[in-house]
Parts: sequence; C-alpha cells; structure tokens
Amino acid sequence: MELARIGATEKGGVCRLALTELDGKGRDLVCRWARELGCTVRVDGIGNIFMRRAGARNDLPPVMTGSHIDTQPTGGKFDGNYGVLAGLEVLQTLKDNGVETEAPVEVVAWTNEEGSRFVPVMMGSGVFAGAFSLDYVLAQRDRDGVTVAEALSAIGYDGTQPAESIPVGAYFEAHIEQGPILEANDTIIGVVEGALGQRWYDVTLQGMEAHAGPTPMDLRRDAMLAAAKVVTGVNALAKSHAPHARGTVGWIDNFPNSRNVIPGRVKITVDLRAADDATLDSLDAGLRHVCETTQKELGVDIDIEPVVYFPPQAFDPKLVDHIDTCARALGLSAMPVVSGAGHDAVYMARVAPTAMIFVPCKDGISHNEIEDAQPHHLEAGANVLLHAILRTAGVAGVADKERA
Amino acid sequence: MELARIGATEKGGVCRLALTELDGKGRDLVCRWARELGCTVRVDGIGNIFMRRAGARNDLPPVMTGSHIDTQPTGGKFDGNYGVLAGLEVLQTLKDNGVETEAPVEVVAWTNEEGSRFVPVMMGSGVFAGAFSLDYVLAQRDRDGVTVAEALSAIGYDGTQPAESIPVGAYFEAHIEQGPILEANDTIIGVVEGALGQRWYDVTLQGMEAHAGPTPMDLRRDAMLAAAKVVTGVNALAKSHAPHARGTVGWIDNFPNSRNVIPGRVKITVDLRAADDATLDSLDAGLRHVCETTQKELGVDIDIEPVVYFPPQAFDPKLVDHIDTCARALGLSAMPVVSGAGHDAVYMARVAPTAMIFVPCKDGISHNEIEDAQPHHLEAGANVLLHAILRTAGVAGVADKERA
Repeated sequence: MELARIGATEKGGVCRLALTELDGKGRDLVCRWARELGCTVRVDGIGNIFMRRAGARNDLPPVMTGSHIDTQPTGGKFDGNYGVLAGLEVLQTLKDNGVETEAPVEVVAWTNEEGSRFVPVMMGSGVFAGAFSLDYVLAQRDRDGVTVAEALSAIGYDGTQPAESIPVGAYFEAHIEQGPILEANDTIIGVVEGALGQRWYDVTLQGMEAHAGPTPMDLRRDAMLAAAKVVTGVNALAKSHAPHARGTVGWIDNFPNSRNVIPGRVKITVDLRAADDATLDSLDAGLRHVCETTQKELGVDIDIEPVVYFPPQAFDPKLVDHIDTCARALGLSAMPVVSGAGHDAVYMARVAPTAMIFVPCKDGISHNEIEDAQPHHLEAGANVLLHAILRTAGVAGVADKERA
Repeated sequence: MELARIGATEKGGVCRLALTELDGKGRDLVCRWARELGCTVRVDGIGNIFMRRAGARNDLPPVMTGSHIDTQPTGGKFDGNYGVLAGLEVLQTLKDNGVETEAPVEVVAWTNEEGSRFVPVMMGSGVFAGAFSLDYVLAQRDRDGVTVAEALSAIGYDGTQPAESIPVGAYFEAHIEQGPILEANDTIIGVVEGALGQRWYDVTLQGMEAHAGPTPMDLRRDAMLAAAKVVTGVNALAKSHAPHARGTVGWIDNFPNSRNVIPGRVKITVDLRAADDATLDSLDAGLRHVCETTQKELGVDIDIEPVVYFPPQAFDPKLVDHIDTCARALGLSAMPVVSGAGHDAVYMARVAPTAMIFVPCKDGISHNEIEDAQPHHLEAGANVLLHAILRTAGVAGVADKERA
C-alpha cells in the first residue's frame, strides 16, 4: 500500500499519470524494493524497468512477469500495480525460502500502459514487442506539448538499454479482472486464454433537423432515431455471438441537441470485440448491414469510419495450462476467461510465450477510484504466479524431468 | 423586407431578440407604418402593440390579426413577422380601395413570442389571455439579470394600456407553416383547425458504467441501450397515433461519454404532441409502459419527470370555415392542417374566436437563417386574410344579411 500512497486521491484511488513526477517517485520505490531483493535493475530507452533476480543458469532466457504502475486520472490502487507487486512478492518468497531458479526471473514495469497522458496506450510493451518504433513514441506529446522523451528525461528514466525485445522464456502477467465474470461465478482465478480483438468505429448519421411540432412522423429524417436503431442493432449483434463478443456505443454527440428539434446530425462511436477474427469480421458485416437497413428505412445518411483494429491474441496454450494446473494444485477455484481489455501481455504474446492470471475485483469495477479487490484473492493470484514461474523457470537442483 | 434588415444576419436570417434595441427599432418601424395607414397605436403594460383602423361602428369589438416580430437567435425573416406585415398589408389594401369596415380592424404585434431571451414563450399573448399575470412576467430575467420590465422601459414600450383582454370579435393569425405538409401536398393555404397539445418530459436512465471490453453482454446495465429503446418506443408510439401525434427525443446527455465505457447514466427529453387530450393521455401511458418494460428488461432504472403541459386547442369552427371558403373563392388550393407548434393564436383562442392561416415555407424549415417562403404564397395568404377579415368585420354599407 506504500506505492498506492504516491498519487493517492481523497476517494481512495490513485492518480499517477505516466512519466509525471509522481510516476518517477513510484518507479524509484519499486526499484528500491527490487534492489533490496538483490535484483539488478536495468531501464531501456522507453523507460521500461527490468528487475532481474539471477538464476543458476543465466544463459537461459529469463522468465518474466510484470505489468505497469501508471494509472488513469481517476484510477485505482490495483490496476497494473498488482502485477508488478505480485512479481516482487514472488521474488521475496523465493528469497525468504532460499530458492534458486534455473532461469533468471525478471519483474518488469512497462511504461505508460494507460495512455491517459500520452498515446498510444501500452507504449512500453508495444516498443519492446516491435509494435511501435522508439523514435515514434519518443516524439509523442501530451496536451501541454511535452514529448515522451522530455518527460522520461525529466524523471531520470531515459534508460540506456536498447528498447527492443530480448529473448524471453515466458511472460506472465497477474491483473485484476476489471470485469464481473469471476465474481459472478464465485471463482478466484481467471485462467486467461487470450485477449479479444477490437474494431472501433466513428459513425455519423446525417438526417434533417426540423421542428418537433409541425413535422409529421412520416416526413422526418430523424438522426436520433437512426442512432437508436444502430445502438440496439450493435447490442443484438454482440449478443448473437455469445459469450465472448462485445458491442458498445459509449459516446454520442447530438446536433442541435434541443428539446423540441428533431436531431439533424448524430455522431456515435461503436466498439466491437471478439475472440477471433472470423467473429470480428462477422460483427463488422453485421454493423454495416444494420446501418444500410437503417439508412434505407429512415432516409438518414450513415457514414461508418473504422478507426482502430487490434487483432485477437491467443495466449500460449502450454502456459495457460500451467496456470490452470497450478491454481487447482493450490486448491483454488479457477475458470477459463478471455481478456476483454488490452494489456501489456497482449503485445508480449507477439514475442514470447505468454499467459495472464486474473483475480476478481469488487463489482467488476476498474478505472475508478473505488476499484477494490480482496486481500485473499490478491494473495491467491500471487501464489499461482509463484508456482507458474517456478514450473517454467525451473528450480536449481531439481531434475528437468520433474519440471513441466 | 425593410423590417428584415433590422437584425439581419450574414446568412440571410434575422436575429432580433425580444425587447432588445433591435426589437425596439423593429417596433418603431411597424408603428410608423401603422400611423401612415391612419391607425391609432396603443401599447399595453407588457408591450403588446395594438394598431387600430377605425370602422363605421367603433362600438363593435375589433377584428384582430397579427403575430410577433421578435425572432430566434438564428431566426428567419418570416416567422411571426409575416403575420404582422400581412395584417398591415390588409390595412393598406383597405385604404387603397377606400373600404370602410363595420367593426374596427386591429393589427397586433405580440411581445416575446419566441422566448429566446425571456421565458415563458408567447409572453404577450399569454398575458392578454390571462395565462400569466403581468407582475409575474415583468419580473422574469434574461441571462444577464435584466428584467422584462427593465427591458420594456429601455426601448420605450412599457405601455400605459392595461395588459388584459378586451372584447375581440375575432382573431386571425397568418403564419408560415414551419413544417413540410403543405409543400408535400402542393397546397398553398393551410386551414388550421387547431393546435396540438404538448407534454414534455425529462427522462433519466441510470445503469452501471463499466468497461466495454471485460463486461459480457448479459452482465451489463447499459443506459445507452435503454435510452435507444425509449427513443424507438417514442417514435413507434407517435406513429401508432397517426396522423397528428408527434414523438421526439431532441436532447441527450450521456455519462461518462467515453468510447470504451458502457454508459452509466443517460438523460433524454421526450416531446409528445397530439390533437386531443385523449390521445395525449394515451401517448403518456405508452411512454410509461415503454420505460417500465425497458427497466425490467435491462436492469436500468428509469425516472420520468413531466415538465410541461400545453392543452390541445381547437380553433373556432366558424372562422376555420371562413378561411377555407375564402381560399376556395380565391381559387387557391387549401387543406385542413393542425399546428404542431405553439403560436400566439393558441392563447388568443382562450378569449376570442380564433383561426390561423398557414402558407408553405421552403422544405418546411424554420427557426433557421435559411428559412424561406415564396412571394406568391405569402401574397395568397394575405389575400385570404383580407377576405376573412372583411367577411368577419363586415363592410360598411353592405347589409348584414350579405355577411356570413
């Protein structure tokens, strides 16, 4: 909870935006803890922090775990931070029990996962995985015109290590679920099989604004009514591709937005997610069909502009199975889930065998100062992480055949 | 068009808000024209201007016609102004042809019909008809804190006549339709049988905001989806009470209005209109049913707050028939319509036999700087007004039996 005091908000949350002075203080604290655990600490050119505990065979690629410590402006204590602290807790436990792993174990804190101050989101892991070039992200600016490069330098985290992928034996990330499924199923461990792909759209509906009184229903071109049909259509589409598909209209802008004027132009966003590209394509086709049908029915012109595509990302089946096995061996309830949100692990899965461990968060609420999680759930997740790491990194002196 | 130059906007519209200096200049011009026509001009305590052309029998209650000359901030040249100028044109024609009416004919310019600067709307006619007390409206303030009383005094239109109803033989109001029906039916004269009643509501839909990614469709309480169901429900309701019912959602506020967050709270307005109270009650019941069904289906709490009720107002059947007769006698196409919007005539109908004459406006567009109307339609409407006034006021020297 010491980390959560840096940037603590009155409502019990945390506001520690990426690469601010507060983020620098959080990083300093995490690095100090890592050094106290005997780790070497390296920082790369995008400010990712790699905290390595040596193994018996340091020629092996490290088993890596971590997440991020930057937060949303009205963020909680657990999102991201839990993954980094669970990694350090694993190292503490190894130290306390005098356990030497075969492969080195590395805890990583990725730079700017949230994207609240600088875009793109998942910046540090994205650079590591080659999704963005270092030069590109260093030149990004916040609303005050400060570049990522300047902000990194200001807090002393413009590291000297090359900001590129090194061989990684396995990457695990423990995270709060940020959704309600585990709680609804009274289950402690979410065995994350992969992350949903995402397609985001801006949709503009152009009708004809007119007086609400004198304009009969059959002579209207009501952009709000058209938008309502798209909203219900998007919802029905996602439901027809249960259980993993999602369809959300989260943003709307209405013109002229006057009580007694039929809306002339409405803009909405559409967020579609699915576990595989075939389903995502089917959702895309469904959205286009709904818009075409609505356009014809209501005489409202509808323009669909795709703005983002994140491909679906399956995690490593062997590591996913490790997590399930470890959870059950520890007597913990576990169920397969998919991640609906993006995580650093999604980029890591492009360059290393990767899996995630979810633990429940209260009412599924995240990105909110009231975000909360139960201590025994957090502990259980860290224990599963410990065993999954041991199983993957190997314990020095234990024969290979006893490792999975 | 001289009046339209006072407050003219670059886009061809007019911005002449009630009781501003520009409104004062417009009033001065109208009063000058009336005096040049030989009228006596009286102003009452709420600034209504009564321009009277004497008849042969000034003991008879006057036949009155008029409308308003204040405009919306982005208003057009015709809304309201047409009714006042058509009245003056009638007086000009009577003068040019040396016609003396039996009853006096009075052109009236009502104060603040639009309500853009001061509420309530239809203020001057409302006071005249007893809908509001004079003291109440004089104390209303604009956004700068200026009262109606102060604004009236500043332009010299705080008149000395009592602001209350006098006996009126008949009231006619010529107005652009502000809707598309006449144009769609290729008809020049709308014989207005009455005005729709209105019920306005504020509806608040309270769901649960959550991440668009991790939250499965069946665990959502999506306030935007609920709002969409109310929007489509309101539309279907109005359509099921054709041809006169109207249902409109013109305003929306969405929280937190973020692309990848399921909306937690949506507020919308609902505007329901119908030609009679039974239909209005049926629409009200329908709205409540839609909201109850949606609340149960989606787990979103829906609160309905009624904010305005204007009763339906039928116009005087005899005067309505006069207008239809006059239009057909002039060889003009005519059809019965209802007024979907409020007009000064709606209040006047409470204290005097009242009817309205509509003429088409381009594409049905009003309350917009591009508002337009065809000269020969405006002329036709003024001719119908002339004949309806002659028929009602009577022509001196023509025996009563020849009058309708």
